[in-house]
Amino acid sequence: MQNTENHHQLFLHQSQQLIEVHSFERLAELFSENHPADIASLISSLPQNIREQIWQLVPEEMSGEVLNEIDDSIRSSLLGEMETAQVISALSSLDEDEQADLLQDIPERTEEILQGMDFDRRQRLEAVLYYPEDVAGGLMDLDTIAVRADVSVGVVLRYLHKLSSIPESTNKLFVTDRKGVYRGQLFITSLLTHDHDTMVEALLQNGGSISANTPAQEAAEIFAKLDLISLAVVDDKNILLGRITVDDIVDFLRDSNQNSMLKLAGTTNEDAFSSVLKSSQYRALWLGINLITALLASWVILEFQEAIDKLVALAVLMPIVASMGGIAGSQTLSVIIRSLALGQLRKGNKVWMLRKEIGIGLLNGILWAIMVSSIAFWWFSSSLLSITIGVAVFINLVVATSSGVIVPLIMQRLDIDPAISGGVILTTITDVVGFFSFLGLASLLIL
Amino acid sequence: MQNTENHHQLFLHQSQQLIEVHSFERLAELFSENHPADIASLISSLPQNIREQIWQLVPEEMSGEVLNEIDDSIRSSLLGEMETAQVISALSSLDEDEQADLLQDIPERTEEILQGMDFDRRQRLEAVLYYPEDVAGGLMDLDTIAVRADVSVGVVLRYLHKLSSIPESTNKLFVTDRKGVYRGQLFITSLLTHDHDTMVEALLQNGGSISANTPAQEAAEIFAKLDLISLAVVDDKNILLGRITVDDIVDFLRDSNQNSMLKLAGTTNEDAFSSVLKSSQYRALWLGINLITALLASWVILEFQEAIDKLVALAVLMPIVASMGGIAGSQTLSVIIRSLALGQLRKGNKVWMLRKEIGIGLLNGILWAIMVSSIAFWWFSSSLLSITIGVAVFINLVVATSSGVIVPLIMQRLDIDPAISGGVILTTITDVVGFFSFLGLASLLIL
Repeated sequence: MQNTENHHQLFLHQSQQLIEVHSFERLAELFSENHPADIASLISSLPQNIREQIWQLVPEEMSGEVLNEIDDSIRSSLLGEMETAQVISALSSLDEDEQADLLQDIPERTEEILQGMDFDRRQRLEAVLYYPEDVAGGLMDLDTIAVRADVSVGVVLRYLHKLSSIPESTNKLFVTDRKGVYRGQLFITSLLTHDHDTMVEALLQNGGSISANTPAQEAAEIFAKLDLISLAVVDDKNILLGRITVDDIVDFLRDSNQNSMLKLAGTTNEDAFSSVLKSSQYRALWLGINLITALLASWVILEFQEAIDKLVALAVLMPIVASMGGIAGSQTLSVIIRSLALGQLRKGNKVWMLRKEIGIGLLNGILWAIMVSSIAFWWFSSSLLSITIGVAVFINLVVATSSGVIVPLIMQRLDIDPAISGGVILTTITDVVGFFSFLGLASLLIL
Repeated sequence: MQNTENHHQLFLHQSQQLIEVHSFERLAELFSENHPADIASLISSLPQNIREQIWQLVPEEMSGEVLNEIDDSIRSSLLGEMETAQVISALSSLDEDEQADLLQDIPERTEEILQGMDFDRRQRLEAVLYYPEDVAGGLMDLDTIAVRADVSVGVVLRYLHKLSSIPESTNKLFVTDRKGVYRGQLFITSLLTHDHDTMVEALLQNGGSISANTPAQEAAEIFAKLDLISLAVVDDKNILLGRITVDDIVDFLRDSNQNSMLKLAGTTNEDAFSSVLKSSQYRALWLGINLITALLASWVILEFQEAIDKLVALAVLMPIVASMGGIAGSQTLSVIIRSLALGQLRKGNKVWMLRKEIGIGLLNGILWAIMVSSIAFWWFSSSLLSITIGVAVFINLVVATSSGVIVPLIMQRLDIDPAISGGVILTTITDVVGFFSFLGLASLLIL
């Protein structure tokens, strides 16, 4: 027997070799013997030109599962090549939340694809499509098994036995009343450890539901905190709509994990293996924004041209002031963004947090002001220059740490994700303040 | 009935009020009625001075679960205040992997605490402590239920019925032979849907194990890909050691999610609510490293003092060259780090990737060289200066994108996490190359 991780490496290795010798028939065979996730991982890491060709080799009955495991950025281009009937057949092997995810990658064709489905399937899918991807309703599937409280364990077991298969990730059944109102949960393991004549009412556990409009991030927090496998999703009237399963939460967390770093660098959702032209376009936006902020900083320097002309040492030292502020600011920013994501920042402690960060700015400001001004004195033997840069570093560090609190709080209030552009705004502030305070003070004190 | 997420908000609100009016007895009562995860979330978001006081109010039987849900950074200070007997009693409510996690926060006391446990408990815990936190063995618990292949479903059901409770997250049993060698898995749901006289052999599914030495990140990928709830952990000889459950994977992903941003800013594991002094210390290291790299850049400028003295416009424009390179480099870096994390970069495609990024560097280099040199011409009306900055931007962007591939690959080879220091190394390169190419070219061409 093969261990799971060795198996994956072996598969990637074999496929790579088959691709190199253009042995496509044997590759198609290899695909049919392997897990869709392995195939997805292979396809994701192929250069774009070969990718389409290899995608054709995926057996039709696996294509839905493979698409489901592939990055969003790649998925839409593969879906784009498929005919409506092919998409409908691919979707049929997936849960409703997964189908909805895929359809959201080709919004312009959603209506056409829904029309091609039979009534029952369409209706189920529309129930999930009604909710955006980033709330609980968008993560749910409809594979719930609901039972009444006034039946016995024996009845429930006989009912389950009659089902030929039980949906994946089913660790609990949901107890509802006659009108579908959610009452609580019944663990499968407690069915196994109790006698057949025990009533469901006695084993029923309260709680364990979430409103369909809860943000996905919050749902993930609840799963993490309560170690859940599945969770009932209800509407405003507490009617059971569906359930979220932990595999969806794992996928959600994994995706946001991968994306949090890309977000910071402004390359959200870039497919690592797309073409040079496409990637260049993705990145040009952020380079453009950065150019504007860099020009702002340059404009500050331009205003003090005269000072630099008189004392060229200012030009040598000025990047230090800006860069120390930039680091201090992004340190605070990342701590605050994390606290916001974890819901740790509340009315009660925001002011406390601001005061704390100003404290850090004052303390590190004094420390690094002394350090930098000593170095400046050692380089240029001018006590005035050395005092100037010390004061400028101090000012910039205090501004940096306090902006690190204020900027993300304001952005959150304005419903802008501070993880995406907080860093750019912050370094713009620290560049401008750094250059301005250093060159401005120098003009006043030295020249 | 209360929805799960409303309940959490309500609890935080009520506790905050009770803390404000110093009504500690009622707070202790509120604690005993709530979930440990809610209490952990409250304690994490309290300033350090109040935190210890509130921690005393947590009922002893909940203290283990609360500690388990609290951030590493806070946990060690709370554990530090507890006596050995208290720690041992707190641990008793946790799985082995969770106990191991807690003990790893107070390494100097591990031996003493292990000695205080009874033999059986110590032995189980040592089996997990044997593995580091970041491999599969460190994530496992020992709550496996193992059965033989040559018994019937009826026998297994009777065996389960005799257990008064079945461990949480049990969605499958593990099938082993007489010597404990892992043979495969048996889903609980298939027990329910098959007749009592079916043999386990017939329902047994192969695969589904992982070696104890597999990196935790890889284990998380496997859970995500295969939508697993639990997975058998085996040793080199394929003996069943324990199991990983998906809640541990969710916690692992959530933590690395939160930490990936902090890593980039060099504030790993900082407790957002610790004291000013402690936080300042944490951050000083990274500020110090940054100062060294900033000095390196300043030293390059110092070498070209004369040039700036003759043409002050160079000082105005030089930050633009450095900053464009910095952004282009970190864009590439984050794409590469993500691909490394997802295991998408293999021998077969590393060179392809490098060529692609150089292509992006060339393309964006030409685009932004034209842009920046036009702006420079508009500002300073000097065609020589404008050509100089254009060429410098072009050089720096190509260097930036190729370093963005090479630096993380070298770091990975040296077993250094590129997410922690890759950014600093990269901006040092782009600063130095940016200033050097711009000022050097200016000295040659203009002066």
